[in-house]
Amino acid sequence: MMEQVSIDLDSESRRIAGAVDSIFAQLLEPPGDPRDRLFAAMRHAAIGGGKKLRPLLAVAASRLFGIDEERAVRVGTAIEAIHVYSLIHDDLPAMDDDDMRRGKPTVHKAYDEAIAILAGDSLHALAFEILTDPATHDDPSVRSTLCGELARASGPSGMAGGQVMDLAAEGQSLDLPAITRLQQLKTGALIEFSVESACILARLPIEARTPYRGYARNVGLAFQIADDLIDHSGDEEVAGKRVGKDAGAGKATFVSLLGEDRARQQAQMLVEQAVEHLASHGAEADLLRAIAGFVTERDR
Amino acid sequence: MMEQVSIDLDSESRRIAGAVDSIFAQLLEPPGDPRDRLFAAMRHAAIGGGKKLRPLLAVAASRLFGIDEERAVRVGTAIEAIHVYSLIHDDLPAMDDDDMRRGKPTVHKAYDEAIAILAGDSLHALAFEILTDPATHDDPSVRSTLCGELARASGPSGMAGGQVMDLAAEGQSLDLPAITRLQQLKTGALIEFSVESACILARLPIEARTPYRGYARNVGLAFQIADDLIDHSGDEEVAGKRVGKDAGAGKATFVSLLGEDRARQQAQMLVEQAVEHLASHGAEADLLRAIAGFVTERDR
Repeated sequence: MMEQVSIDLDSESRRIAGAVDSIFAQLLEPPGDPRDRLFAAMRHAAIGGGKKLRPLLAVAASRLFGIDEERAVRVGTAIEAIHVYSLIHDDLPAMDDDDMRRGKPTVHKAYDEAIAILAGDSLHALAFEILTDPATHDDPSVRSTLCGELARASGPSGMAGGQVMDLAAEGQSLDLPAITRLQQLKTGALIEFSVESACILARLPIEARTPYRGYARNVGLAFQIADDLIDHSGDEEVAGKRVGKDAGAGKATFVSLLGEDRARQQAQMLVEQAVEHLASHGAEADLLRAIAGFVTERDR
Repeated sequence: MMEQVSIDLDSESRRIAGAVDSIFAQLLEPPGDPRDRLFAAMRHAAIGGGKKLRPLLAVAASRLFGIDEERAVRVGTAIEAIHVYSLIHDDLPAMDDDDMRRGKPTVHKAYDEAIAILAGDSLHALAFEILTDPATHDDPSVRSTLCGELARASGPSGMAGGQVMDLAAEGQSLDLPAITRLQQLKTGALIEFSVESACILARLPIEARTPYRGYARNVGLAFQIADDLIDHSGDEEVAGKRVGKDAGAGKATFVSLLGEDRARQQAQMLVEQAVEHLASHGAEADLLRAIAGFVTERDR
């Protein structure tokens, strides 16, 4: 069973999302020239929407090692910039063709397709501007490692590669290992980097990172199963976006392969395993524990 | 008058382009899974086309400071990855809607739009993977600075911002300062970073970089004027892509504002100024001098 943790996840989550939004608002002030529309599109997508799970994970993991929260928030903002760029591009007509995201019109609907492509590209670059700023960490070796690992997690060996696998999966009958691999790249890699970033900020030796990588891998997979369950349940209000589209596209999901009940059990088991990886920690891991529990009962 | 320089630009250029292609070929080996099509699209766009002006500039500038050519080639490959991602995205139907690039079908024509978006995104991330590899430089401070400056040169304050300005310029009557500013962001920033990257590799103090920044700024502008002249002249074989589209889109260019003769004179003057910035250097600057001369007489 999950242990009770005395942490107000909602208020922590709101506070951290607010801190991320503040950094975006500061970085995305209109420059007062023809790029104002680009910056407005970036703000539209980045500010005020979503649970900001990845920054929350980065901050929560940084507590294990006594890292300055401000630094973890900066890294979380860089990760969120990557996540948001990927949502903008995934929503394009040539990809998932979605009109709504986080309860608002998608960027290509609110602006246009060209601005959506360039707003995504701009947020992508912005992530590396944030990470290389000495305010993120005074050790340039930490900053360089953060950039390299974020690039790996988001590029062809990570998120972008997973998105291609997802497009290729339409009409294919993938099995459980294939779906797991696909999701590990598409959403898992960036979630895992969110936790790993705290290990990097703390300059934790690689061999000491195993439990945190285990936690992140379990949470990432539980998150994806929960996402499939939301898509399957068909509640667009909870999802903040169009649902039921995986089944519509003939895509195998954890739910289509396992059935709803077993998928739910599997997610629950993954959450319990995630929490077990934190057994050596006391109260400093409570936020990570709370996030693991939340992942299976969330809206996004 | 331009001085004669005894350097075989053609063979140097071919050799460096070959070295860049080798790195791309090595990084973009098919992974043997559903991502093979993504990697093929990245290879299609990155390998074997174009003059690779930016890597050539990075290598040429690195000679001023006795930097290992291998390092400069790696940085040049990262810059080329950014340049190629921007070409893939600019060619998309929602942007310039071009079918041909460097004499080959554009990525969305040879593959599809979704793959083109993701191949661009993947090359974007790959650039930062290359820069953060210790093979690029053993000083992590150099690697972090390269990442930060490349992000700035390619993001909303650089290339992507300039592309938005260019889209906004359709049907507007921009004046010379506005066009210069637009081009300084759209193409100038990445060309300037190509030269700056050598200063970063050499850990040259900021105050010693002025002549090289002057060279790069002049060459970048001369390059853009030459590009406008090619677009205006209408030789698609030289351009390797559709031409005459700026006039078609009602866009002001250096040629439409200055007239063909004055534009040509202006480019020539910029090239001479660029070379003057190298006056304190001997034969180690010959490749940079040769590139400056070539810029106004090139195909791309």
